[in-house]
Amino acid sequence: MDRMAAFGPLFCDITWGAGGSTADLTLEIASRMQNMVCMETMMHLTCTNMPVEKLNNALKEVRGDAPEGHDTFTPIEGGFACALDLIKHIRKEYGDYFGIGIAGYPEAHPDSILDDEEKMKENYWRDIHYLKQKVKYRNQGTVFPGLALSFPGVFCHKECWDLQVDAGGDFIVSQLFYETGVFLQFVEDCRSVGITVPILPGIMPIMTYGGFKRMTSFCKTKVPQKITDALESIKDDDEAVKKYGIKLGTEMCRQLLDSGVPGLHMYTLNLERSAVSILEDMGLVNRDNLPRHFPWRPPTNVQRSGEAVRPIFWSNRPKSYIKRTADWDAFPSGRWGDSQSPAYGTLNDYQFMRRHTSSEKRAQKAREAWGDVLSSVDDVKQVFVNYCKGEINILPWNEMDSMQKESAELVPKLQELNKKGYLTITSQPRVNGAPSTDSTFGWGGPGGYVYQKAYIEFFVSPEGFSKLQPQLNSAPSISYMAVNSKGELHTTLDDGNVNAVTWGVFPGKEILQPTVVDPRSFMVWKDEAFDLWITEWSALYDGGSQERKVLQEIRDEWYLVSVVDNDFVHGDIFKVFGLGD
Amino acid sequence: MDRMAAFGPLFCDITWGAGGSTADLTLEIASRMQNMVCMETMMHLTCTNMPVEKLNNALKEVRGDAPEGHDTFTPIEGGFACALDLIKHIRKEYGDYFGIGIAGYPEAHPDSILDDEEKMKENYWRDIHYLKQKVKYRNQGTVFPGLALSFPGVFCHKECWDLQVDAGGDFIVSQLFYETGVFLQFVEDCRSVGITVPILPGIMPIMTYGGFKRMTSFCKTKVPQKITDALESIKDDDEAVKKYGIKLGTEMCRQLLDSGVPGLHMYTLNLERSAVSILEDMGLVNRDNLPRHFPWRPPTNVQRSGEAVRPIFWSNRPKSYIKRTADWDAFPSGRWGDSQSPAYGTLNDYQFMRRHTSSEKRAQKAREAWGDVLSSVDDVKQVFVNYCKGEINILPWNEMDSMQKESAELVPKLQELNKKGYLTITSQPRVNGAPSTDSTFGWGGPGGYVYQKAYIEFFVSPEGFSKLQPQLNSAPSISYMAVNSKGELHTTLDDGNVNAVTWGVFPGKEILQPTVVDPRSFMVWKDEAFDLWITEWSALYDGGSQERKVLQEIRDEWYLVSVVDNDFVHGDIFKVFGLGD
Repeated sequence: MDRMAAFGPLFCDITWGAGGSTADLTLEIASRMQNMVCMETMMHLTCTNMPVEKLNNALKEVRGDAPEGHDTFTPIEGGFACALDLIKHIRKEYGDYFGIGIAGYPEAHPDSILDDEEKMKENYWRDIHYLKQKVKYRNQGTVFPGLALSFPGVFCHKECWDLQVDAGGDFIVSQLFYETGVFLQFVEDCRSVGITVPILPGIMPIMTYGGFKRMTSFCKTKVPQKITDALESIKDDDEAVKKYGIKLGTEMCRQLLDSGVPGLHMYTLNLERSAVSILEDMGLVNRDNLPRHFPWRPPTNVQRSGEAVRPIFWSNRPKSYIKRTADWDAFPSGRWGDSQSPAYGTLNDYQFMRRHTSSEKRAQKAREAWGDVLSSVDDVKQVFVNYCKGEINILPWNEMDSMQKESAELVPKLQELNKKGYLTITSQPRVNGAPSTDSTFGWGGPGGYVYQKAYIEFFVSPEGFSKLQPQLNSAPSISYMAVNSKGELHTTLDDGNVNAVTWGVFPGKEILQPTVVDPRSFMVWKDEAFDLWITEWSALYDGGSQERKVLQEIRDEWYLVSVVDNDFVHGDIFKVFGLGD
Repeated sequence: MDRMAAFGPLFCDITWGAGGSTADLTLEIASRMQNMVCMETMMHLTCTNMPVEKLNNALKEVRGDAPEGHDTFTPIEGGFACALDLIKHIRKEYGDYFGIGIAGYPEAHPDSILDDEEKMKENYWRDIHYLKQKVKYRNQGTVFPGLALSFPGVFCHKECWDLQVDAGGDFIVSQLFYETGVFLQFVEDCRSVGITVPILPGIMPIMTYGGFKRMTSFCKTKVPQKITDALESIKDDDEAVKKYGIKLGTEMCRQLLDSGVPGLHMYTLNLERSAVSILEDMGLVNRDNLPRHFPWRPPTNVQRSGEAVRPIFWSNRPKSYIKRTADWDAFPSGRWGDSQSPAYGTLNDYQFMRRHTSSEKRAQKAREAWGDVLSSVDDVKQVFVNYCKGEINILPWNEMDSMQKESAELVPKLQELNKKGYLTITSQPRVNGAPSTDSTFGWGGPGGYVYQKAYIEFFVSPEGFSKLQPQLNSAPSISYMAVNSKGELHTTLDDGNVNAVTWGVFPGKEILQPTVVDPRSFMVWKDEAFDLWITEWSALYDGGSQERKVLQEIRDEWYLVSVVDNDFVHGDIFKVFGLGD
């Protein structure tokens, strides 16, 4: 899911009870997509076999809270007779809250596909008129910017496609097809009866020969002869089939976009590679320049829509941050100080708290990375140096399996720092007005300029800090905070201080300042940062071992230090460490 | 007052009932200082002849609203016996709201100055111990950054100096003196008994011989023989006396600052020139680089302390803006959209609305500037061109008597624009990261960088706008709004759009964005902007005259256009007008 989300799809689908899973699992996946993976989620709903209570619970879960003024629910006797009932119910109970997608059948609904061509044509037009009845173009301003990946894409079950909308439908997604002409004719036919909503083509890249055959047979999809012929000759060569699928998909998508479709809906079947390759071949996405709305990825949960600023401390642990702020009513937006600072929740969910020690397999991997023997602080230093070098790719303070891209240019200096005993966990270089489309530092879309103040956060021994502090104090552009696990704080900053360390200037907008450094959240973060020495690292070793002793001592005695160089135009943050250019 | 405020004093004094004025006038002056001139105000209070009700009304007036939880007032029978009573009363009713200054007598209180030297010494120390009793150093963090101008400085009336503070005094201001040694000894004596509050020396520059003699005699001030001698020889040469006063003042101030005084309190007697010359000679102020907290000067009224952003439209009419927003409970701070936009008040106060037509004398001055004959639009254009050239220094849309300094570099292009019939009223050039101490664009104090998007606002004929609009639409970095007096709006901006056009980046702070362009306040401003054609200009001429006809037609038919070039790095806003470099 994370790999798909990185490419910035408009939304991702999840089928209801996919692959025989329970409703609970479906909802948990949907919730995780929205809140942790941070993707807009389209949950499929079936009309048949869907008791009203179950549906309503699901909608409530996805919405996150009870709809205002609709706390009491009036069930429809005996469930929903047809999709129209389902949609009417959703609109009645939830108003415009949910965007609703409708299934469209370019080749007519599978049930309507008959041998009698005359009768079939009749069915096709009946379906189109029925579609019109269920559609109203409400969001005149909605733009589909490029692509939509489908996940997990058990797409051709009849129930999944029975998601039909009453006069409140937002858009149509088509059944898969392999003749672009058929889809374009379908769009034309829809327009001819007055359907004006966006219609997204459903593209299923051919990934395996067997899968392709099963799908097209089940969905009664027309397959052009030249595709059948092409596949016949390579059907035993899996790689060749995959490659052909990408080539064919790219051709189809190019043709569709040239014909003016507003976006592409990719059926991925949980595998993103072919879909991404197609989008790359068309130049729609670039894995070296992924789109970023903010430097961090905001959850799509509507309660967090006001979220516009985060402390930098959790930048390598976004899921922990989201978890700890899940109960916030309001998010500081713009001026951090505007909202009274809500309390950070504690991390009692071990899934988040113990990434590297929650299973034997993970612990194994972590010990491989960090070593079986830590006889002294020097061995710990070496782990950090190895991480900087890219020789290992996990650290307790990073939820992701690699250093953030934008720290890459700091790597040589960070290695030096770690060798000197400054164990770095978060950093960013200064940026003085890079284009907002910059492949490393860009965010917020085209036309703007982005800025950063240089930042380094690290653990250091008490002796190391004593030596460093005079340097920090005498550097005019430096501000810092240093604290140990006992809470002894050294800083020149006021408690209420907020320093914007990432900001962007965009046409026709206020200045956006999505990342800040502030003492209040630092004092919350420090507990988490110190605890990770124990919960994620020391716990890997036996009680009473030398390893535990070494790690525990660092946790108990060392300082966590946060350093900002405020001079984003000329500054060199490494100077105070004796590593200036 | 405006001239004094420009130099950024920490506060200005105003005496109570100065020069025989009524309490009402005193309060009106104090209120204007706070709210329109935007200077922190220190109002003198007398103990003698001060009925409790009068005092309380005054404090309420200055505070702006009733103190919370203290709506009921307990009068002290028969007024205040001594300053201590007065101060106790203020602290009891208003807590820490008011900062309180205390009079200090380096040469002892005039009443204590006796021929009996022994007795006098006794009095001096009694006064110092009394002072200590009344002082408590509450604001450990208070810093006096440089200077304080006293206004209007009828300073030596005994009553004025009887402002004494109980154990809540914030600082001491000394009586005037001409022997710095006497003042420094006084400070030492105060410290010796444990008085720790800042003690500001009171400096009265010698401006006239007669005035100096009267003051020093009235206040029983010691005058060193060398000053008496120096003045004797030049007493008939007014200019020489003034010059000597500046030289002497500069010497004294330099000596005092070298000795560590935390600031300077200048007695100006309503005349700022000598005081400013002294401060300039010491390098403490620079009339070519005046301090600016924001690009606009915020009122010191505590209700407006949250004010951090203003629409650019009123930048040449700040008093009108303050007046119209006087009733706002909360000021948009940081993110403009955070506060629900409060309504702008109407301008029914003719003092503000009719600057150039409120008196015969002003009307005379305005007609001299704008001409007795306006036979066509060309004559109106010429007025704007003359204003750009600096040949006239008033325009209906500007409260100040000159174009803003920061538009100066645009002047040649603005002249061209006005010749072409774009009658410009507000403008600023783009600025890409000037130091915050820049003499033209700087604000917010040292260590930061300031930015601007280029802005031009003008009136233009309907034909002129028709020609311009395609250029505006096709320039990618331009955003604009155009509206006529009937409210017909042409814009590509959303109603809720807010564009930051001035912002600053400072060490350890969030990004400040004090000036914005937004459609909502533009639609309020446009009424004011169009009305000024009539109330300030057309009203100068006879009913039915050609002049009125010309001006009325512009007001009725022309567009007011607001143009932002969002590319603050490379943009050239004059390109769309065919005047690019």
